[in-house]
Amino acid sequence: MNRVGREVRVRRYPAGAVTPDDFEVVEVPVADPDPGQVLVRNTWTSVDPGLRLRLRPDAPAGYFAAFPLGQAMDGIMAVGEVVESRAEGFAPGDVVSHAQGWRDYAVVDPRATQLGGIGTLSRLDVGDAEPQWYLGALGGMGLTAYAGLHVIDALDGGETVWVSAAAGAVVSLAAQIARLRGNRVIASAGTDDKVAWLRQALGVDAFNYRVGDLRSSLRELAPEGIDAYFDSVGGAHLEAALDHLTRRGRVAMCGSISEYESEPSGPRNLFLAVSKDLMLRGFRGSSNLHLMAEMRDQLSAWLRSGELVHRETVFDGLDQAPHALAEMISGRTTGKTLVSIG
Amino acid sequence: MNRVGREVRVRRYPAGAVTPDDFEVVEVPVADPDPGQVLVRNTWTSVDPGLRLRLRPDAPAGYFAAFPLGQAMDGIMAVGEVVESRAEGFAPGDVVSHAQGWRDYAVVDPRATQLGGIGTLSRLDVGDAEPQWYLGALGGMGLTAYAGLHVIDALDGGETVWVSAAAGAVVSLAAQIARLRGNRVIASAGTDDKVAWLRQALGVDAFNYRVGDLRSSLRELAPEGIDAYFDSVGGAHLEAALDHLTRRGRVAMCGSISEYESEPSGPRNLFLAVSKDLMLRGFRGSSNLHLMAEMRDQLSAWLRSGELVHRETVFDGLDQAPHALAEMISGRTTGKTLVSIG
Repeated sequence: MNRVGREVRVRRYPAGAVTPDDFEVVEVPVADPDPGQVLVRNTWTSVDPGLRLRLRPDAPAGYFAAFPLGQAMDGIMAVGEVVESRAEGFAPGDVVSHAQGWRDYAVVDPRATQLGGIGTLSRLDVGDAEPQWYLGALGGMGLTAYAGLHVIDALDGGETVWVSAAAGAVVSLAAQIARLRGNRVIASAGTDDKVAWLRQALGVDAFNYRVGDLRSSLRELAPEGIDAYFDSVGGAHLEAALDHLTRRGRVAMCGSISEYESEPSGPRNLFLAVSKDLMLRGFRGSSNLHLMAEMRDQLSAWLRSGELVHRETVFDGLDQAPHALAEMISGRTTGKTLVSIG
Repeated sequence: MNRVGREVRVRRYPAGAVTPDDFEVVEVPVADPDPGQVLVRNTWTSVDPGLRLRLRPDAPAGYFAAFPLGQAMDGIMAVGEVVESRAEGFAPGDVVSHAQGWRDYAVVDPRATQLGGIGTLSRLDVGDAEPQWYLGALGGMGLTAYAGLHVIDALDGGETVWVSAAAGAVVSLAAQIARLRGNRVIASAGTDDKVAWLRQALGVDAFNYRVGDLRSSLRELAPEGIDAYFDSVGGAHLEAALDHLTRRGRVAMCGSISEYESEPSGPRNLFLAVSKDLMLRGFRGSSNLHLMAEMRDQLSAWLRSGELVHRETVFDGLDQAPHALAEMISGRTTGKTLVSIG
């Protein structure tokens, strides 16, 4: 069948801030699935901070590879509906998630491991959830939030946990999981609107880190110090955390968005890790797939009971994906950033 | 009784490299012990890299306090002999360790917790050991080496472990413990003599980090990468380790001697902790006192069997202590640096 679909391609690696001009949206013929493959019409696609790391020739070692120029961008999460299946276990109408987003149609092989397993084609038992939740709270975002708290032993409650960039997709979940598991949570974000949302919708203490001094704000809200820090920002935030952590404090590091568009510098006060017996633990959601089922059970229950708030910033139409990424990286989105595909 | 003893005092905080001129050795009357106290004649006193951190007005938070100017320097390990005891459990002739080194005589209260417990007055059951070993392999140095490998789970063997500054007191022990527990050990040091000693006496692979490129040398000796890194150096060494660690690698951080006399900068490639699921774990020996007995049992056995090599660089006479510190920090000593007090 002669279908035509659109796909987003990288035209050039951005020099500093991402702009929509760094991309192009092109029409391409859609291949028919070979035996063993499935054709999916994408309905939602994901916009993640980590994509920025792949928009440069030298993606960090151990991370997902750079996006090649002038080709479809593989390795971005999407959900969609099966249109045609030549693979066992998949039938037209199935709702699935996979890793070939940022395009209208994808031909997917369920035997290929994608994004460390997170992006391998899976049929979703959506039930009373919305399909796009599997790109957020019930997908890689939820897993990253849950795994981060898990690897620093912050799921048992009774501690003070700082989460920065807390209006973002992963961290707004981490903030709530930490609170629902019995911790006191202090959140920070970069606009008054986000701070108001954190306080009112998420029920955590929050401050605007762009107003006044970061360290003073932390000291005011947590005069006894923080026991754990969930870091997706790096830079000055990580330094402030090291200063403010109590003895045997822990840091879960899932990113350093403050440094994705500049030269990273590293925390100058890292010696405090020695003097205060601190642990800094980098981690990736995809390295913790064994926690996926446990996370989904826990978060689904909280979503159903209304205890967990799942906010989305939705951009309408595939051609908006580059703009959505630029908006998210510059801090103008709240919660999970998504593109709905017509 | 009217005794006179000498003590070392800090005259000024060194601006860059430590020099003996930053100190003075003065004669002072020795107080008689009050009830509950013990008078000790020191025979050996310790010279540790960490002392450098206390020779500045702004010792790092959570670390031991700065040495005050113009007073005896409290909180440095020593061993000696009890001369007079007014405390239960101590008698003249007992060999003890405590935290009032860098002086001839010390009046010590056994009820006072010193150096987080490591320096609290203790009677030593020396047996066939030498008393000064309790300042090295059987004391805080051994504990720091053992605890560092413990907190990063590197005592089970079967991995490749890099130890830098491996001719130093703590790290030369860490290198041997790691090897004796079944790991492959790669050691680095800053002179050919030290490298030869590491190879011949300690039986580990070793390279001179001042010759050629640090990363290339590591790659050559560990083409598959390193699983764990024992860090007392920081700076460029820590960056090279982050580059070269395998997925789920771990770093035990007990110091960053390369940065004690300059502005620390922090590892610029810390994002690799995220992309490779790395753990960086700061720790102090004194936070792991619960491992002391286990460490002493293990290391005593290896010392008796000759499997563990314990090298000392000894400076003769209390007035040599400042010179000994300067020599150690500039990398001109091997193994445990000690001052024997006449």
